[in-house]
Amino acid sequence: MQSATEIRADSADFTALRRESVATVRAAIREGGYRGQTAGLAAGRLQANLAILPAEHALDFMRFCQRNPKPCPLVGVTDTGDPMMHTLGTIDIRSDLPAYNVYRNGMLESSPADITDLWCDDFVAFALGCSFTFERALIEAGIDLDHVTRNRTVPMYRTTMQTRSAGPFGGGMVVSMRTIPHSRVQDAIDISARYPWAHGAPVHVGDPQAIGIADLSRPDWGDSPPEQRGGTPVFWACGVTPQNAVLNAKLPLCITHRPAHMLITDVDEFAETPFV
Amino acid sequence: MQSATEIRADSADFTALRRESVATVRAAIREGGYRGQTAGLAAGRLQANLAILPAEHALDFMRFCQRNPKPCPLVGVTDTGDPMMHTLGTIDIRSDLPAYNVYRNGMLESSPADITDLWCDDFVAFALGCSFTFERALIEAGIDLDHVTRNRTVPMYRTTMQTRSAGPFGGGMVVSMRTIPHSRVQDAIDISARYPWAHGAPVHVGDPQAIGIADLSRPDWGDSPPEQRGGTPVFWACGVTPQNAVLNAKLPLCITHRPAHMLITDVDEFAETPFV
Repeated sequence: MQSATEIRADSADFTALRRESVATVRAAIREGGYRGQTAGLAAGRLQANLAILPAEHALDFMRFCQRNPKPCPLVGVTDTGDPMMHTLGTIDIRSDLPAYNVYRNGMLESSPADITDLWCDDFVAFALGCSFTFERALIEAGIDLDHVTRNRTVPMYRTTMQTRSAGPFGGGMVVSMRTIPHSRVQDAIDISARYPWAHGAPVHVGDPQAIGIADLSRPDWGDSPPEQRGGTPVFWACGVTPQNAVLNAKLPLCITHRPAHMLITDVDEFAETPFV
Repeated sequence: MQSATEIRADSADFTALRRESVATVRAAIREGGYRGQTAGLAAGRLQANLAILPAEHALDFMRFCQRNPKPCPLVGVTDTGDPMMHTLGTIDIRSDLPAYNVYRNGMLESSPADITDLWCDDFVAFALGCSFTFERALIEAGIDLDHVTRNRTVPMYRTTMQTRSAGPFGGGMVVSMRTIPHSRVQDAIDISARYPWAHGAPVHVGDPQAIGIADLSRPDWGDSPPEQRGGTPVFWACGVTPQNAVLNAKLPLCITHRPAHMLITDVDEFAETPFV
């Protein structure tokens, strides 16, 4: 098993894969030849967050996703014990992400590139949509996104907004923030609303303090945004929300994607429903 | 327990309730004073199909809904054993529908107005969106719907389109058909696509035989449409699909709404996500 420190984006590998098909990219990941971040790979394909849980918690986790569709847009779920995510492509969920995080009792244990040796007959894997989809749609509509232009990670914040709990899963909602020109805010709302599988419309527009964010310059995850000039802060529900919910449940064992090392599916990122 | 033959729409009761608030309508239903159909009641509120299953089948049923979001748009799910559907209003799922169907081993046993005496600690209730929502949106956009104008039931058909199965749940997709003027077909597609919680965009437009429907004049459920003149047959996924999947699974016990006797929620029927 690889340790976390051995896994990094390899820019030469990334450049080589940048123009390759989803099949080539997945093969490189599966064979262990690529362990880097997935943003910009297999353009046009839906990428997804991953959570793997024992079956005894799967029903509650599905309820949690149903009750919180903006932070937790469920795009795929395996049969119990089956490592193949059939509805999203020919995907072996044990090997087809570049890196995983393994947690025991809510504590990070390791970040391997393959989890075949950890897979159990009672595991259920969940894929959840991510922001790449609506970000691409915003950019195609001529709305520049600062963190993309600057090649940074979007800033993410804890909020005072609460999720609707289910079993051991609950807690606060995490949001990501993008500064949108005042004149394009309504466009950004309308465009992102078309993608319920990618967090949908924003959960808040404007005053950060209204949702418990004291200082936009100090995100809880990601990179600080530049000074706010001529734009409105717009907040979308973020996939860190279910990740926190899973960790806070302190299950004996759970596995997620390593942040930014996503599941790349065969699904068209703009498809009405997330299926091949 | 009331037998099926005692339950019918009472037109005097219906007229009296037609302009009442959702709270008044629900109280009348809960107290047993109204046992009729729900179309047209509590205008503007989301109505939903109901399926109640033992917990041992709940995870597979949620997978079935996730894999088939067009016929099975899941808008609510209770905690195991809890009869309150908290996310959709102050709803006691045992008494707040006008009529239920009780099935044992896939066979209809009774159609009571209340299922409190049948409720078990291992039951999970599922609410699934219905076509009322997008029909209202189409009508508001000036697209007349023949079955509404004629006060008939929309025609529904078995098709050769298959659902994606999960555990014991699977089988063919059932569709409903509405004849749309040629010039408004794209509008009808675009408008209904805005409501993923209400079956979303059509699953087929045009030739019925392409999806295995031999004769539009002979629907499997509902009333025959008038002769096709100057319109295109447009087919949407239908809530009979999950009902058939549940019946075909031949569970020892399951309970659904009685057709057309829906769960009336507090949720705005045009809400982006189905929550109060």
